Amino acid sequence: MIRRCFQVAGRLGQHRVLPAVPQVLPRLNPTSAFGSSTDALVSRFCLKKTDLKDYALPNASWCPDMLTLYQEFLEKTKTDGWIKLPSFKSNRDHIQGLKLPFGLAVASDKSDWRIFTRCIQVEGQGYEYVIFFHPSKKKSICLFQPGPYLEGAPGFAHGGSLAAMMDETFSKTAYLAGEGLFTVSLNIRFKNLIPVGSLAVLKVDVEKVEDQKLYMSCIAQSRDQQTVYAKCSGVFLQLQLEEESSQ
Amino acid sequence: MIRRCFQVAGRLGQHRVLPAVPQVLPRLNPTSAFGSSTDALVSRFCLKKTDLKDYALPNASWCPDMLTLYQEFLEKTKTDGWIKLPSFKSNRDHIQGLKLPFGLAVASDKSDWRIFTRCIQVEGQGYEYVIFFHPSKKKSICLFQPGPYLEGAPGFAHGGSLAAMMDETFSKTAYLAGEGLFTVSLNIRFKNLIPVGSLAVLKVDVEKVEDQKLYMSCIAQSRDQQTVYAKCSGVFLQLQLEEESSQ
Repeated sequence: MIRRCFQVAGRLGQHRVLPAVPQVLPRLNPTSAFGSSTDALVSRFCLKKTDLKDYALPNASWCPDMLTLYQEFLEKTKTDGWIKLPSFKSNRDHIQGLKLPFGLAVASDKSDWRIFTRCIQVEGQGYEYVIFFHPSKKKSICLFQPGPYLEGAPGFAHGGSLAAMMDETFSKTAYLAGEGLFTVSLNIRFKNLIPVGSLAVLKVDVEKVEDQKLYMSCIAQSRDQQTVYAKCSGVFLQLQLEEESSQ
Repeated sequence: MIRRCFQVAGRLGQHRVLPAVPQVLPRLNPTSAFGSSTDALVSRFCLKKTDLKDYALPNASWCPDMLTLYQEFLEKTKTDGWIKLPSFKSNRDHIQGLKLPFGLAVASDKSDWRIFTRCIQVEGQGYEYVIFFHPSKKKSICLFQPGPYLEGAPGFAHGGSLAAMMDETFSKTAYLAGEGLFTVSLNIRFKNLIPVGSLAVLKVDVEKVEDQKLYMSCIAQSRDQQTVYAKCSGVFLQLQLEEESSQ
């Protein structure tokens, strides 16, 4: 089933010029498909009461640029409709009570599962980031500070670490904006290297939703917008998560 | 200088349809540019005597598929021209005695720098991989086994972790095949999810070298080639590393 599910994504990606390919789409009830409102998705995602550690909070490793921009966006959560997304150790924590469709659900076990962008737990050494999401504008901002464990060329972040950060920001945005669940494609153009320990600001916009796919764009740049680090477009496939208790 | 260097890459990526853009290329002596033979590059890259730990060696976490395919390619290093690339903790170890051009070199310090794909040192939890390179065919094979710290959807590798693994395999291939140094672009189409703990085989080919750029392709699939995980094209910019002692 997993194979079929992603063959769908693959085919959609390859044949996007076709007028319609409904026969390869997963069977979804049109009246209920993607019926969850953004507010309901955000409400479930951003648990009010939880013992889970939120990794998207300031720590001593954050550079001054990251701290001040974090505070600016925190203010905007009070006045301008932005929401600060919590960031738990695993995606399993974000989708408690839900399971992946098409038999993709795996049995829980005692392994130390970690979402890739929280794989390194030593403050400042790996990924430091926080994502703010704007439900009505369907856009996100990610403040990203790569540490020395994310190195590529000496002193600079690995291109792959930025690619993963873009994919993760797309992922959270796609899910909350329209139940986008799986990456279909990423198209990245790199412009400048990000110095380790400095701030990159990722701006993500949902450009359109069509044929069960979300089309998004991302630009990563310095805080003053004078240096563009990379531009990226991403396509995500919409698939509804199922209630664990449902038959 | 860093900015100018990458603006070059950016411009090249954007204006690839232009017949020629020599005015934006770094000034290189045509007689010496990219004159290092692949053999010389490989010889410098694969240190015969070193105290550095090679992370691309089998350990108890490797799955049977990964172990048997590793042994198969190790045999091919004796008979078929393949070379097993060592994998050190930092790219700094791979380019000892050399520095990046255009003022990109950074002062060495006591930080614990790690190449991103070796950021997690606990066996089996993060990236397990080994790259084999064929100098005359200008192709590579990467055996990649993602651990539970590389999770995206529950039980499966994060798309970003595969993107980074592709970028890293491209990177080593581009450098050894033709002094390709920086990623200009990555274009990834995801087809199926990789289960955590299983083997993905990445096949990389250098398709062409043109206008100081290497064009490469990658397919990631299961060992039996029945499941394609992703396909990717990548463009790298050629830039020569300078001898540290040179003026």
